[in-house]
Amino acid sequence: MTTALLATSLSAPPRLEGPIGLVGLGLIGGSLGLDLQARGLEVRALVHRQATAERARQRGLASAVSLDPSILQDCALVVLALPLDRLLAPEPALVEAIPAQAVVTDVGSVKAPVLACWSGLHPRFVAGHPMAGTASAGVEAGQRGLFAGRPWVLTPTPHTDPAALDQLCGLVAAVEARCLVGDAADHDRAVALISHLPVLVSAALLQGVDGCARQQGGALPELVRALASSGFADTTRVGGGNPELGTLMARCNREALQTALAAYRRSLEQLEQCLAEERWPALQEELSTCQRLRPEFL
Amino acid sequence: MTTALLATSLSAPPRLEGPIGLVGLGLIGGSLGLDLQARGLEVRALVHRQATAERARQRGLASAVSLDPSILQDCALVVLALPLDRLLAPEPALVEAIPAQAVVTDVGSVKAPVLACWSGLHPRFVAGHPMAGTASAGVEAGQRGLFAGRPWVLTPTPHTDPAALDQLCGLVAAVEARCLVGDAADHDRAVALISHLPVLVSAALLQGVDGCARQQGGALPELVRALASSGFADTTRVGGGNPELGTLMARCNREALQTALAAYRRSLEQLEQCLAEERWPALQEELSTCQRLRPEFL
Repeated sequence: MTTALLATSLSAPPRLEGPIGLVGLGLIGGSLGLDLQARGLEVRALVHRQATAERARQRGLASAVSLDPSILQDCALVVLALPLDRLLAPEPALVEAIPAQAVVTDVGSVKAPVLACWSGLHPRFVAGHPMAGTASAGVEAGQRGLFAGRPWVLTPTPHTDPAALDQLCGLVAAVEARCLVGDAADHDRAVALISHLPVLVSAALLQGVDGCARQQGGALPELVRALASSGFADTTRVGGGNPELGTLMARCNREALQTALAAYRRSLEQLEQCLAEERWPALQEELSTCQRLRPEFL
Repeated sequence: MTTALLATSLSAPPRLEGPIGLVGLGLIGGSLGLDLQARGLEVRALVHRQATAERARQRGLASAVSLDPSILQDCALVVLALPLDRLLAPEPALVEAIPAQAVVTDVGSVKAPVLACWSGLHPRFVAGHPMAGTASAGVEAGQRGLFAGRPWVLTPTPHTDPAALDQLCGLVAAVEARCLVGDAADHDRAVALISHLPVLVSAALLQGVDGCARQQGGALPELVRALASSGFADTTRVGGGNPELGTLMARCNREALQTALAAYRRSLEQLEQCLAEERWPALQEELSTCQRLRPEFL
């Protein structure tokens, strides 16, 4: 299935009604808790550890926080704000505790495997991905306004209850995110290109530069460190990020990422050939194309 | 020759004495003019066009601005703040106008070809490279404090007059830059790695993502543009920069850049292999190395 990308056409998404259940109070769950309570909604959160529950209560991340899955009973909407690996191997007690009539969504950054797992676990599951983040994680990371103006992708299937999708559009609107509705496979191919590929491209730059400098020896290892400036810092930022997260993304989106890498390698080889054959007007033309392309992505 | 990198050991670089000649009043020349005048020095500037001269006078970029190379007479120190292509094909009238006893330097971002050209043109030429910049260029770009805290590399040869090098250290100190002294070939290999390679890596990312999205068709071209966020923006920043400048760097530093590209390709292939063979602990170990490496370059 290839669904065209569309912003949700609902002029007025349905008013959200509580209580809303959050599973996990890390960056995404905690930020949701703060924003939803600020809209006057009751938020009930399930967490894994006692220390998290205590700190979450101190920070006011939810109206009620518990380690007992029964806290989710009576929730009309449940957001699984868990890391991908835990989302893909959910605890039976969690699955059992989610009310059958609740609308359920997740916030994982790869959608097809989540959909494959959860479609069989809950009848009203709709996969989602808020494209918002900071470098922080954990119970201290949640913050107000994290989602404002950011895209939030929902990936319904032909079997999705339209009323469930509408409710999730209401959730997205409540935190002032931009709702995009599309196909899960399209989403995964897109994030492979704009999010997972850059991690590997950027990581290879760090390793390539360090390795090449060491191989050349002499002053080079020290010199590259002394001279690296904002351009190098920017290009290597995502490659120097969380290794667990990078690996998890690659594992869950391997095929799309391999397709993306193959396309990237072809583009790099074209530039390399211009250099090897000293075709400078051709290189300049390629770089001019890049200069024109980039603003389309900003 | 491989000179070890060293910060200049002069505890007190010689006091600069004017007049100082600037050839060109773009970002680097204009910023130098502003900083040096603020230190009470007389600055005489040679520019190419009447409109530039007028605007430079309005902005106060130099004490005197002229289109006539004779303005450089009596200058004890002359800074060639020209783009690489003009620096490598200097006008005879310029070369003739530089006083034989003056210390002469440049600000080009590749050093070996500049050294090859200018060593034969002036007996007291010492090549240099201030590692400072903004996205701006031209007579409007010059600004106070551009060099403060930034590295400024000087690349003397065995034939360089130590007194000439000392004077240039004084210039670097006067604008509060950090003076690094090293070998021209080392400098060029280092900037190939940390400055020129990132441009191609980043440009290939823009082209690869756009090409792959178009090839996959459907919602993809629109979706990648809608979902690209700060990570993609950072990783593609230098690849979407000035194409003329990018091409000039590649042309002037081709060999070192090809070596850098080969090392980069090997690093990328290693990551790609982890993915293809689903060796996730190995991929995570590679990404952990990157996470540890990056702070060394900041």
